[in-house]
This record gives sequence, C-alpha cells and structure tokens, in this order.
Amino acid sequence: MNAAMSRSIDSQRLADSLAALGRIGAYADAQAGLTGVCRLALSKEDGEGRRHVVAQLKEAGLEVTVDRIGNVYGRRKGRDDGAKPVMAGSHIDSVATAGRFDGCLGVLGALEVVRTLNEAKVTTRRPIVVAFFTEEEGARFGTDMLGSAVATGRIPLERAYGIADRDGKTVKAELEAIGFLGPAPEQLAAPHAYVECHIEQGPVLRAANVDLGVVTGVQAICWHELTIVGKSAHAGTTPMNLRADPGVAASRIHLYLRELLRSGRYGANLRATMGVTNFLPGLVNVVPNRVTCTVDIRNPDNAILERAIEDLVGFYARVADEEQVQLTHRVTARTPDIPFAPKVQELVARFAKERGLSQQRLVSGAGHDCQELARLCPAGMVFVPGEYDGISHNPREFSTPKQCADGVNVLLDVITALAEEEGP
Amino acid sequence: MNAAMSRSIDSQRLADSLAALGRIGAYADAQAGLTGVCRLALSKEDGEGRRHVVAQLKEAGLEVTVDRIGNVYGRRKGRDDGAKPVMAGSHIDSVATAGRFDGCLGVLGALEVVRTLNEAKVTTRRPIVVAFFTEEEGARFGTDMLGSAVATGRIPLERAYGIADRDGKTVKAELEAIGFLGPAPEQLAAPHAYVECHIEQGPVLRAANVDLGVVTGVQAICWHELTIVGKSAHAGTTPMNLRADPGVAASRIHLYLRELLRSGRYGANLRATMGVTNFLPGLVNVVPNRVTCTVDIRNPDNAILERAIEDLVGFYARVADEEQVQLTHRVTARTPDIPFAPKVQELVARFAKERGLSQQRLVSGAGHDCQELARLCPAGMVFVPGEYDGISHNPREFSTPKQCADGVNVLLDVITALAEEEGP
Repeated sequence: MNAAMSRSIDSQRLADSLAALGRIGAYADAQAGLTGVCRLALSKEDGEGRRHVVAQLKEAGLEVTVDRIGNVYGRRKGRDDGAKPVMAGSHIDSVATAGRFDGCLGVLGALEVVRTLNEAKVTTRRPIVVAFFTEEEGARFGTDMLGSAVATGRIPLERAYGIADRDGKTVKAELEAIGFLGPAPEQLAAPHAYVECHIEQGPVLRAANVDLGVVTGVQAICWHELTIVGKSAHAGTTPMNLRADPGVAASRIHLYLRELLRSGRYGANLRATMGVTNFLPGLVNVVPNRVTCTVDIRNPDNAILERAIEDLVGFYARVADEEQVQLTHRVTARTPDIPFAPKVQELVARFAKERGLSQQRLVSGAGHDCQELARLCPAGMVFVPGEYDGISHNPREFSTPKQCADGVNVLLDVITALAEEEGP
Repeated sequence: MNAAMSRSIDSQRLADSLAALGRIGAYADAQAGLTGVCRLALSKEDGEGRRHVVAQLKEAGLEVTVDRIGNVYGRRKGRDDGAKPVMAGSHIDSVATAGRFDGCLGVLGALEVVRTLNEAKVTTRRPIVVAFFTEEEGARFGTDMLGSAVATGRIPLERAYGIADRDGKTVKAELEAIGFLGPAPEQLAAPHAYVECHIEQGPVLRAANVDLGVVTGVQAICWHELTIVGKSAHAGTTPMNLRADPGVAASRIHLYLRELLRSGRYGANLRATMGVTNFLPGLVNVVPNRVTCTVDIRNPDNAILERAIEDLVGFYARVADEEQVQLTHRVTARTPDIPFAPKVQELVARFAKERGLSQQRLVSGAGHDCQELARLCPAGMVFVPGEYDGISHNPREFSTPKQCADGVNVLLDVITALAEEEGP
C-alpha cells in the first residue's frame, strides 16, 4: 500500500478541469459581482456540460454508457474485470445561482483519480466506474437525487419520466432533447463500494480549521409547513387580552426550536430553522389574522429526531390553545438518517492521517447521491472545507486548489484500496 | 335642561341617511360576501358623496361653506349669532374596503341633531356647525387627518396641496377636479367646543356590553421599522452556534413586546403589535440573512410610552449583540397622547347616565379629527360599540340602529348643552 500512498493527483490539472466545466453555463451574477454557474438539469447548458465531461471520460480511456434516466457511467477495466467495480462520482447539474464546485468536484475528482492511475500505469484488481447522476439538485424538476434514486430503485423510471418542470416539459422529453436518453438499463447492479468527494457546503470544517471531513452519514430530516389562523384586529384599538394573534404563536414556535436545543433532551446535534414567515395582511397597525411559516428540523439519529418532532407537535397544540388560534401543520418532507459504511469511513480517516491531513468526523446536513447508493453497497463521502463559511449554492462558493487536492488525494487512496479488495 | 332630555333623534331617519350615503361608492366585496364602500378622499365617489351631504345640510337650513382644503362647514344660526359656535362632525372619506359607519356616523349624526332641533323649533344660544374634513383616513394621500390638520394649523396649506397619490395626482388638482377647492380661509377660528360621535373600531365596548363610550383622549403612538441583517446559511449544514439568524432576533423582539406588558412596568394599557415580518430569502431550508419587521406600540400616557420605547430600544441592542446580527430601527410615526377636555367628557357621561345608558371611559386607539380640533378648543368624543368585535375598515363593520341612536342622542344633549353656555 505504501506505493499508493506516494502517488498524488495533479492539483493544477484538477483546478483547470473544474474551471473548464465552470465556464459552461457561466453567467455574470450582478448581486455577487462574480461569475456564477447556471446548469439546470437537462437544460441546453447541462447537455453541453455532459458532452464536455463525456469527452474527457473517453479521453481517459473509459468506456461510457448512458442509462435510461440519463445517468452516465465511465468504466475503467480491472485486472479481474468480472469483479464488482468501485464506483465514484456525484453530479454536474447545478442550481440557478451556483458556483463551480458543488457536485463537479466529485465527478472531476474521480476522473482525476483515473488520470493519475493511467499515468502511473496502475491497473487495479476491480474495475473503477466514474459516475454522474441526473438532477441531483432538484432545482429544475423538484425532486432531488432523481437519477441516483431511479438507479437504486427508490423512484420508478416511469414516474421519473413524467415529472415536469414549471414550463410543463417532462424529464423524458428533456433527456431526449439533449441527447441523453440512454439505452442502458436504469437499475444499477450493486457496485463493490461507492465513494463521493464533495464540498461540505457548511462552515464546520473551515471553522475547525481542519483539512478534510470524514462523513458519517446523512442526517434525518423533517419539514413542516404551518398555517396559523387568528383574528385580524386594529393594533391601536384592540386590548392584548382580546387578541388572537397568529404571529405571536409563530414567534413562540420559532423560539421553542431553540428551547428544544437548549434543553439538551435531544443531544447536541439537533438543527432547527424557521426559514419562512408570512404575516397577512402584513400592515404595521393590524394584528395579523393568518400566518404561514415553515420548520426545518434535522438530527443524525432518526429516533432522536422523531422524539423532538413529537415534542414540537405537542408544543404546536399548546401554543394554539394558549394563543386561541387555529394551527395546522403539513409534513412536506421526512427522511430518516442514512449512516455511511464504517469501512469507508475508516479508510477515509486512515488515508487522511497517512497523508498528514487533519480531519473531523461530521454528518452531512445536506442530501447527496451517496445516500441513494448506500442502499446498494458500502458507501461513504469525503468532505472538503469551503471558504466564506462554506457558502454554497452561490457564486461565492470556493474551495482552494489545495483543499480540493487534499480531498481528491484521499479519494484516490480509498478507491485504490477498495479496488484491490478480494471477493466477487 | 329637562326639556332637552326629553327630545330624541329619529333613529330610523339616521339609519336611512347612513344607508343612503353608503350607496355612494358601494361595491360588491367578494371576500366578505357583502356590499362594501370605497370612497377614497377626493375621488369621483367622494365628490358624489360630498354633494349628497351638502345637499342635505342645505335642506336642513344650514349655510354651507367650503374652505381651501375642501373641508365643509354647515352653519346653523344661534340666538346670539356672534358667539363662538359649537362644532360637531367627522369625515365621509373612506378606506378602499370600508363599511358605512366610520366617520359618516359623526357627520350624519350631527346633521340628525340639527334636524331634531329644527323639528322641535329650538334655537340654541350659540350657532351650531356641522363639519366634515378632507382625507381623514390617509388612505389615498398617505397623511391622515389632513383636512383637520390644515384647518387647525398643524400642516401648512401649501404642503398639503403638494401631496400626491400613487398616480402622482396632487391634493390641489383633485380638490379642483371634484369641485371642492373652496374659497373660505383654511384656518379655522376657534369654536366654543367640538364634539364627534364615532364608532369605536374595536372590541372593548361590545365585550363589556355597554351602550356607549366616553372617550378620554387619543393614546400616544410609536411605529418602528426594523431591518435586521445576519448571515444566510444552509439549514442542514450550519450548526446552531455558527448561525447569525435575524429571524430569531425578530421573534425575540416580538415576544419581548409581550414581556413589556407582563412585567407590569408600563401599566395595563400598553399595546404592542408586530404586524409585518419578512424573511429573506424566505426558503424552508435556508437560515434568512435579512429580516424586516415592524413594531406598533401605544399607550394613553406619553411619558409611559417613552419609557417603554427606551426599554424596547435597549432590548434591540441586546438582542443584536446576543444573536450577532446588525439591527437598525427607523421611527416611522411618533405622536404624543392627546387628552380630551374633561368638561366634554363629563357632559357625555352625565347625559348618557340621564338617558339610562350604560357607559365606559376609554382611550381611543385610533386617530380622529377630534385630536386636531383639540388644539383649538375643548373637544371630545362619544364612541358607539360595534358588532363582530368592533371590526372596522371592512364591509362587515356594523353598529345597530339602536347603538347609533344612543350615541347621537347623547351627541344631541351635549351639543344642546354646550350651545347654551354663556360667554363669547
């Protein structure tokens, strides 16, 4: 294994290939004063980006297949070419106001791993597959991890085909339009393992000043949309005891989210956010009669999240009673936590240590293709820190060439090690 | 005086005249499922309403003058016609979604008083003037009590003339357009007293099940517009201790308004409302980076309000520090309390009692023309309860013929008593 340790990827080549892909779908972002990226899934720009990446996969000697949901796989032969492959990848579609790292680092990083192995003339026992999946963001068709969810059987192909964007254009029609409605079966045969390198999209690693994150899994998520109805009233003429103010109820719930944390009943990893509130009629001198607001609550442990949600829903009832308002909540998202394979975590941690990189274990706050692949095989992720508090989904998104190279070097090590493993 | 006590107004005639004026500017309100009134100041409909009322003032034998800001005065001769008149009135302009009582009750009530005196062939010692003032609502030109503020010298005529509505049409041009740019000097000579009958526009009297309110004055008012800036962050990836959430700051301020009340430090009459909040970007899974919200805080005692505001502004600074956000506040309204003349309050209370009407003293939460007139002469108001929690500025606004008649009978008594008083 020491031979593998001494190999490293070409940091400049990786940075260049991130920059080149970032020019496809580039736009001048007036608010950020920077060049951003807009490469919505299955758009003309996504088509151009896909062809650009496919060309590079082929140039690196990979055999490219496109499946029926537009997922792209570039296969590198192994010494034992019938063994299950090690897969690495991510996505290249973007939100409307993106930077050039989200997803692309995982795809171009895996390509850089292949290029490095090619240059070193190393053939691993197992095949290696570089993958990129369709519509990870959900920014165009509203369902995130669409391609990887179809490939791993969570979403049926026909359902995915029928999903339409805001203009009524369907996934199937748009796959066809950009030439990526592939012939390969969408159901993915289980790989030996799946590894994904991704920017953290948060401030934890940068704040801790560590080089790299070992991702333990994706946390459990719950979204509520609340509608609270009270009585509209004149702010000057209505005594406080005769009011039924749904805005006060919303603010109490907002602060109760913090109380859930402070109580310590749900450990240190609960995250809870009220991202939306809307007071109607929304006038300075009128007590609102209708408030809508949202709650986003997450925990690495689904059972703990479930208890926190029960607590919260109990508080909804209490606050509705005390404030004399009607409160209804609708669950708009609910997914359990998805732990990543301990084996992959250990490999990431070990190789980071061998390379002298400081590291921290952390749970992923956001969703990733890796959580879908985790249903098929041992799967895991390497997180790379981001500057500016890890801002993402924004043209300011930035990880330094050194940060990116650290992550992809560990990806190289992990892929190489997994690809030498024995077995079918 | 006992003769005066036995006289009463014609309740049916009053109800009919409210209904007739309410047909001018009537519209079908889809939301309320009722007929509403839209008679914005100096609109075509207001012009029609004005001509309708002027015709009735003349029919009742009053000498009508229109001043340079469009205020209309209908004068009834007194036995001692050189003595200062007793004035009564209100306004007939409305908000865009009004009922038929707000303002109109004070104007048509004063007209009903004159008709009653006419029928009884009573001539009071002092002249009686029925008045209605321009743009009390501020709903079209943005400045409430505009006409009465000009008549009493708070707002200069030329400044008032220059105020434009959203379409750029000025007060002066619109006065001219509807034929109410009068020739009479706008500066009002001090009357002997001013009395206004008005719906409460709140729930207090109806909740207490009393017939009538003796208004002690208009409370002091302060409006703040807050801008709170924090850091946008991913709801899933950003730990709570690394957040700077301006929404949490807004919710803490919202609940502190209640704390100001509960502490008892500012008595039982503080009213405080957050009517607007706006979280940006306003997404379920994004910690907002910018929140705007408003505070409306009122108290009958200006000195108490001032102390409460100081307390609140101190809390703004504390919460900004604790939540690590930038908070600025802009004062968008600030008026002191305006006490009404004890003499007028006593007369209202006495005559209500003599008529066997239950009563309650209360402060007006909303602004009225009477607070402007209070600068010139002893002034006061009679409040009439409203059904449906006293809802107002809404087609559901409703006071029964009995409730209206009770108020206007007391108005009759008070005007008659004041109009017999000795002196210049």
